[in-house]
Amino acid sequence: MNYKYDGWKGFESGTWVNEINVRSFIRHNYTPYDGDESFLSDATEDTLALWEQVMELSRQEREKGGVLDMDTRVVSTIISHGPGYLDREKEKIVGFQTDKPFKRALMPYGGIRMAEKACADHGYSIDPGVKEFFTLHRKTHNAGVFDAYTPEMRACRSSHIITGLPDAYGRGRIIGDYRRVALYGVDRLIADKEEQKRTTRSAMYSDVIRDREELSEQIRALGDLKTMALSYGYDISEPARDTKEAIQWLYFGYLAAVKEQNGAAMSLGRTSTFLDIYAERDIKNGVYTEREIQELVDQFIMKLRLIKFARTPEYNALFSGDPQWVTESIGGVAIDGRHMVTKMSYRYLHTLTNLGPAPEPNLTVLWSTRLPAAFKRYCAKMSIETSSIQYENDDLMRFTHGDDYAIACCVSSMRIGKEMQFFGARANLAKCLLYAINGGIDEITGKQVGPEYRPITSEYLDYDEVMSKYDAMMEWLAGVYVNTLNIIHYMHDKYCYEKIQMALHDKDVTRWFATGIAGLSVVADSLSAIKYARVKVIRNEAGIATDYEVEGDFPKYGNDDDRVDSIAYDIVHRFMEHIRKNHTYRGGIHTTSILTITSNVVYGKATGATPDGRKRGEAFAPGANPMHRRDTHGAVASLASVAKLPFKDSQDGISNTFSIIPGALGKDDRIFAGDIGIDIDCADGACAIPTLFEGLDADGEV
Amino acid sequence: MNYKYDGWKGFESGTWVNEINVRSFIRHNYTPYDGDESFLSDATEDTLALWEQVMELSRQEREKGGVLDMDTRVVSTIISHGPGYLDREKEKIVGFQTDKPFKRALMPYGGIRMAEKACADHGYSIDPGVKEFFTLHRKTHNAGVFDAYTPEMRACRSSHIITGLPDAYGRGRIIGDYRRVALYGVDRLIADKEEQKRTTRSAMYSDVIRDREELSEQIRALGDLKTMALSYGYDISEPARDTKEAIQWLYFGYLAAVKEQNGAAMSLGRTSTFLDIYAERDIKNGVYTEREIQELVDQFIMKLRLIKFARTPEYNALFSGDPQWVTESIGGVAIDGRHMVTKMSYRYLHTLTNLGPAPEPNLTVLWSTRLPAAFKRYCAKMSIETSSIQYENDDLMRFTHGDDYAIACCVSSMRIGKEMQFFGARANLAKCLLYAINGGIDEITGKQVGPEYRPITSEYLDYDEVMSKYDAMMEWLAGVYVNTLNIIHYMHDKYCYEKIQMALHDKDVTRWFATGIAGLSVVADSLSAIKYARVKVIRNEAGIATDYEVEGDFPKYGNDDDRVDSIAYDIVHRFMEHIRKNHTYRGGIHTTSILTITSNVVYGKATGATPDGRKRGEAFAPGANPMHRRDTHGAVASLASVAKLPFKDSQDGISNTFSIIPGALGKDDRIFAGDIGIDIDCADGACAIPTLFEGLDADGEV
Repeated sequence: MNYKYDGWKGFESGTWVNEINVRSFIRHNYTPYDGDESFLSDATEDTLALWEQVMELSRQEREKGGVLDMDTRVVSTIISHGPGYLDREKEKIVGFQTDKPFKRALMPYGGIRMAEKACADHGYSIDPGVKEFFTLHRKTHNAGVFDAYTPEMRACRSSHIITGLPDAYGRGRIIGDYRRVALYGVDRLIADKEEQKRTTRSAMYSDVIRDREELSEQIRALGDLKTMALSYGYDISEPARDTKEAIQWLYFGYLAAVKEQNGAAMSLGRTSTFLDIYAERDIKNGVYTEREIQELVDQFIMKLRLIKFARTPEYNALFSGDPQWVTESIGGVAIDGRHMVTKMSYRYLHTLTNLGPAPEPNLTVLWSTRLPAAFKRYCAKMSIETSSIQYENDDLMRFTHGDDYAIACCVSSMRIGKEMQFFGARANLAKCLLYAINGGIDEITGKQVGPEYRPITSEYLDYDEVMSKYDAMMEWLAGVYVNTLNIIHYMHDKYCYEKIQMALHDKDVTRWFATGIAGLSVVADSLSAIKYARVKVIRNEAGIATDYEVEGDFPKYGNDDDRVDSIAYDIVHRFMEHIRKNHTYRGGIHTTSILTITSNVVYGKATGATPDGRKRGEAFAPGANPMHRRDTHGAVASLASVAKLPFKDSQDGISNTFSIIPGALGKDDRIFAGDIGIDIDCADGACAIPTLFEGLDADGEV
Repeated sequence: MNYKYDGWKGFESGTWVNEINVRSFIRHNYTPYDGDESFLSDATEDTLALWEQVMELSRQEREKGGVLDMDTRVVSTIISHGPGYLDREKEKIVGFQTDKPFKRALMPYGGIRMAEKACADHGYSIDPGVKEFFTLHRKTHNAGVFDAYTPEMRACRSSHIITGLPDAYGRGRIIGDYRRVALYGVDRLIADKEEQKRTTRSAMYSDVIRDREELSEQIRALGDLKTMALSYGYDISEPARDTKEAIQWLYFGYLAAVKEQNGAAMSLGRTSTFLDIYAERDIKNGVYTEREIQELVDQFIMKLRLIKFARTPEYNALFSGDPQWVTESIGGVAIDGRHMVTKMSYRYLHTLTNLGPAPEPNLTVLWSTRLPAAFKRYCAKMSIETSSIQYENDDLMRFTHGDDYAIACCVSSMRIGKEMQFFGARANLAKCLLYAINGGIDEITGKQVGPEYRPITSEYLDYDEVMSKYDAMMEWLAGVYVNTLNIIHYMHDKYCYEKIQMALHDKDVTRWFATGIAGLSVVADSLSAIKYARVKVIRNEAGIATDYEVEGDFPKYGNDDDRVDSIAYDIVHRFMEHIRKNHTYRGGIHTTSILTITSNVVYGKATGATPDGRKRGEAFAPGANPMHRRDTHGAVASLASVAKLPFKDSQDGISNTFSIIPGALGKDDRIFAGDIGIDIDCADGACAIPTLFEGLDADGEV
């Protein structure tokens, strides 16, 4: 191979040499590692000193009520701030979002009021000139959205039948292929984008004009990325030449993204196996020792832990904390059958030891039956020790996404640099059922929110009547919902476009139009109660059904009982079919997720009593979980119910938050998990679930 | 009639009562006037005192080099400035673009560099904060356009084969129906827009989202209009109650437009007959005297004369001055056969006496054979005295546009509030002919700008070969041209949307996609020379044809000679057919104009020698004019040649700048003017053309 760049010396050639194709580079160059964790190094003194500093700043931040410092005047861009350091001498990997650590950036593109409130709620006040400008002359995503919303959309939003819409915050769920910065250097990426711009369609239809403008924005963002890196003393025009540069280049790419965007999930991608190729080469050539490599990784991960945004208390309430979803996907299996665990997979997880447990970055193991046994054991051990690892079913996702996808946020899978998501939060299907019963009148406010269909007036609910009305109401809801999202994503592109993230994508990107469902188990159980027990309606003086009395028992979702599990299946399928009837912005491909992890509490609060006996305001179960305490036939049966849900109708992911203690699963160590990406929340440091998944395969059969 | 509003008392009812329909109001209420000018009043003392002040400020402005004061910090919006006055006591009609007369506003939405240059060229410097903001965070029309242009478009722009594109200045050519403000009051207009927003298509395709956002912007602009008027002490929520209010309300509408937009042509519309209805009623009821009405008109026109924008010397060079094109269309004939001349038509023209001659507002008489004789005589007299009147052929335009259209700029006709134009400047067809000969190589720069078609290599030009190559080159040019305009208008809508002007339009607006032609007579004569004489090509050392020797005589356009006039016809027709092959932004309807009035000089400068014997850099004839001194068969023959051009292919207007001295037309006082809107530039105060048009009808036959 004729090495075009110094940084490529020693790498095996492949398609990646002639085109931007990181997967090809990985495939041709990575070294699967079957050994155990004994090679790992401890944290260096410098790392520990830096981490000490971070801990101290964190303490100060907590004392100040959650925010240590905020920018109130400089609007954040890739190049808005000079370099920032913790301790320049000790830092091997550099770069902060603003000019110092723990200082949160001002990002008003999504919405000036949101930015203002995020400041105000922490005792800061935004510069009046900035506020005026973003009110009068520079429209924001939020302002654009509300200009286009219909009264019906606003009503659905207020009544919480559609919830958590990204219309006042960044949609996130876009993963730039930050590895490209390291592998190709920015100049090559710019040249590629120039080439893309040269080859747009030649008749200037509006979509072509939009593409050309976006490509120009991307090219400018790449230029800014170079400028920003240069402010830290690095010229990233050309490919990285060693592991340190590779990590630094890659991190600069990610840093540019979080300087530009305050997305709900700013995920990192799948970087460990990629970086391992550099580490293997450097160790072989004596450039770095294992200890030095681990130091770089520790410091890189430390930087990722310090990603912070200015957010409002309401936002934090919805997400139960202040998550960034810096999700990194580790492991998995390649299409050619080789597992993709490398020493770097270990090094990433080892940061949980060297720096201690932490929720960010969200280290996610792409679990497969074919991962090497030593790695599985190590994962289990680390999960037990730190409760900080997320697992997802690679055997399932690999089938649709190949072997170079990553997880954005918690369960959204996408091919890196080739697919992105239009995030859509979720529709409250439980409330929708109540609308079906009440003819579109909200059971809490008494307002007519949905269409004025005929309400149910009988004393006892009839299954067929309810299903027929529910189906019609779901069809209405799907329409409003998708159209609301069309507006949101149109405006996000217009006023808050992710320039650098999209610069690290191919030209023709697949866009997942991600809708979502909340309250599934409540609906399944309610319909089961109506079908198998007797449900009496209690109406208020205005004739609105506000409560239900269930007479008799009924099968409950979460017990591997087909009578109700088939209802859950049917609801997901029907709703998705209704979703698919609607036009989507920019050719987005309809998907759904069933994945609330925390917001189910908020959604439940806004929903009246349901025919399953759930009282008004009670929390929904998270994601696709059975309702709390109703899965009485053991964990395997509970998982089996979830596993029956149709993945083809909910490709954006199904989550099942599952806290267990050893022994909960009985003696049989084989379970069905089916078509789901299980999100395991290991409670009490007593979780060793991963080893139990060995028997799984892509069809969910053991 | 049940009068919904005080202001409507005494008016005859009609469709206009139930819907926004100014034409219906006029049709039911106006009083044609057949008398002469003897009723007119002189200027009042207050008017003269104010005009004195204006003259003094004008003098100061000239002394200061053309600009008296400029805003460099406050970005102009409808409500950016407090009220401004000349002399509050004397002013009957109030309102300036900024907080004082002669102070030019800062309007960077079109382009920050243009705004900056307009300041710098007059010794002002723009506020650095504003510059930074419009560079980093608030993209402009100009920046958007250049992000989407192709290298080919840039090359065409640089070589001047496409010229004068509105990509760095406001496109103009949009006439808000300012009369609606007076007739309906702003609240009714807002309610109408709310209704329009309620009734958009319900599936949120991008065009629907765009419409909804624009309607929201329009509604906000109407609110701002009210606020602005209130700052002058007027509540314009409800309809105007008398002539003074009608003029003031209408002017506020126009003022909001010129506060918001610095368009190349900010035309007023067709307001005189509308306002006459109020004046008739008020005089009848003793509310105002003729003298008071004339005072209001004089002061209104005075305000229009003071509309000013911050522009660059280059802009002024292109337009030979600093034109605003505050075009007001007067007269014409109604569809029902009644002429539309009213006393107000006289009063408007009478301002040329009361205030003296002036180029602005651009008073344009919609000429018809059926205008009353007294008015025709008055027009002729005023033209002779002031050289300040433009005439256009109503008999022709009424056929396509009805009786409530107006002229934007100089010849662009559009139904008021129902049609608008995407202004597109023009393609240089003379240079295109040279590209056909040189295989796409620019004859001045030697650069390959057009496609690399085979050049002509023979010593003498062959007509058939040239025509075949010219046709292909025109097809290419039409494609680049329309696509360039698609980008321009997409970006203008995105970054510099005319909120208040479009708020004074119907929801579903017809958009004329106005291309234009320059150099027509040069092309016609060149092709005639090739066909009827012998044209020898002179090439430079690089083989590029740079000059031509014509051997023998040939028929020249402008002499009523079908041999060459048919070539001119053919070229217009062919080019337009090529234009029509291309997709246009937002369903724009393809049109062409042949109407350079001054820029023909600049275009000629950028064009090499042509086969008609014209030397490199020599000016083109303006618009559709024959080349200077080549129309040797008298004025009638000259006009007849122009009249043969196909109006169906150039509906945006054909201009013929025509300076004559009495007697030039010979003894026959009937002429052919055919399918043209003739733009008469009366030189030397010796022009009385209008009376000669009496014999014209819509088919151009006497």
